[in-house]
Amino acid sequence: MGSIAYDAVETPHGRVDRMLGGACTYIALAASYFTKTGVVAVVGDDFAQEDINLLSSREIDLQGLERTPGKTFFWSGVYSHDMNDRMTLRTDLNVFADFQPKLPEAYKTQPYLMLGNIQPALQRGVREQMNGLRLTGGDTMNYWIQDYREELLETIRDWDFLLINDSEARMLSGEHNLRRAAATILEMGPRTLVVKRGEYGAILFAQGSHFIAPGYLLEDVFDPTGAGDCFAGGFIGYLAERGVDPRGGAVDLQDWRRAVIYGSVMGSFCCEQFGVDRFRTLTREEVEDRYREFKACTDF
Amino acid sequence: MGSIAYDAVETPHGRVDRMLGGACTYIALAASYFTKTGVVAVVGDDFAQEDINLLSSREIDLQGLERTPGKTFFWSGVYSHDMNDRMTLRTDLNVFADFQPKLPEAYKTQPYLMLGNIQPALQRGVREQMNGLRLTGGDTMNYWIQDYREELLETIRDWDFLLINDSEARMLSGEHNLRRAAATILEMGPRTLVVKRGEYGAILFAQGSHFIAPGYLLEDVFDPTGAGDCFAGGFIGYLAERGVDPRGGAVDLQDWRRAVIYGSVMGSFCCEQFGVDRFRTLTREEVEDRYREFKACTDF
Repeated sequence: MGSIAYDAVETPHGRVDRMLGGACTYIALAASYFTKTGVVAVVGDDFAQEDINLLSSREIDLQGLERTPGKTFFWSGVYSHDMNDRMTLRTDLNVFADFQPKLPEAYKTQPYLMLGNIQPALQRGVREQMNGLRLTGGDTMNYWIQDYREELLETIRDWDFLLINDSEARMLSGEHNLRRAAATILEMGPRTLVVKRGEYGAILFAQGSHFIAPGYLLEDVFDPTGAGDCFAGGFIGYLAERGVDPRGGAVDLQDWRRAVIYGSVMGSFCCEQFGVDRFRTLTREEVEDRYREFKACTDF
Repeated sequence: MGSIAYDAVETPHGRVDRMLGGACTYIALAASYFTKTGVVAVVGDDFAQEDINLLSSREIDLQGLERTPGKTFFWSGVYSHDMNDRMTLRTDLNVFADFQPKLPEAYKTQPYLMLGNIQPALQRGVREQMNGLRLTGGDTMNYWIQDYREELLETIRDWDFLLINDSEARMLSGEHNLRRAAATILEMGPRTLVVKRGEYGAILFAQGSHFIAPGYLLEDVFDPTGAGDCFAGGFIGYLAERGVDPRGGAVDLQDWRRAVIYGSVMGSFCCEQFGVDRFRTLTREEVEDRYREFKACTDF
């Protein structure tokens, strides 16, 4: 669940005025390499058939895709020369402004839920419509951390994992040091925390220990848009494929760790082309190859 | 070989007006946990006996420590709140200004040489005084890369490894992307490149492949001064302990990789206390414990 959007993006490698984007899009595309995936999102009547076709080509269930008169959520941004910073130029919520996610019946008994970054109350609302969840995780952002703190805290309290970037972890916890930040956040409810560090990888805090995964060393980063959401999709997709069920006791730590690597793998592919383009051709075999490459370049 | 200095350092955790420092000091202290180490450096007549005692307590050979009338090299700097930046407040070269390193006879046949950051021509001069070297590596900095480029290129051409940080690698190669930067630098001569990334770890480029090591996740970073030099000391110290000899054919890739981890281990200890203080009590057993911890928190 999350946004499906049209993005305009400029990076040092070029510029695209309108391309499919949004957290839900990237999460679903990445997760679809591991498990049957469905989306909960809203688009306007301008949403293109070719974009529907792309999602369908990955066998993504679109029953939960609401279509509303008006325009699809639009975001535009420009990346700095080193691509470590980006500036938002425009955010038009459009049909997303009045989004009240309602789950199709068939979704309500699904076991795995990934809540993309969106207002915490809406994230909570989706979770409450579901029965039989094995694993719920979600993302958030600085805006909700600063201005909707209580609502956010009430929401993440029940999640199995929280997946945010390092600056968000620092903001949420009030601690600069990531080990301390993680300890503080784990007391807020989520039993597992994944801190994304962009090109530097990610850290998993789970079951009393931590796991540090370096970022994949790309030769060309064309467009980092969506990489964090692809990480999330690969992460929960792999956990779903493995059928992990924390209610039945502790999850094998190696499953958490491998999920982080698969998340990194999906995020790295995302950066190789503009927007979702890499997913037009990416195969599961390539995913496995890169997983093995990760293993090869971190083993000692 | 490199600088032995007195430093004044301010970090968010406190301030020290005068403490033992300098690249050579940190390199030698870290290397001394792995192998018999000697220094080539100069100090003034103000150099304190207690600092001699610390080096001696680690069984560091001081035959190559020149004592000259005048003051020891002095550096002072202040770290930003997140300790990712530091500003140099003062650099007084003092006796270091006229340093012409001359090796004691006993040093000339040593097999391992680590050249700390210093003017490239002096680094070359030291290397030329030695016969029977198995492995030579060195560090440099932005100043030499920008203003002494030809001298630097002539110097590093003959090194077995170059060990610099990411911004230096970008400056030296003119490439922002680290994979491309590494490819360019490896064509300049060094057969192995280690790119240090501060808290994010290091990347080794050797024998046609690369190894990405994450940084150790410290709970408290008191003072990062010297961490990069401790990395260098741990790195070459371990290679010396293993007796690697690239002249006899390819070094076992695992030796290079483990050297990076030992480098990271030594750098991480360095940050735990001000200046060299952590090395007053650190034991080899603690080094091994942290190496195992590195393994445990990166394994998947």
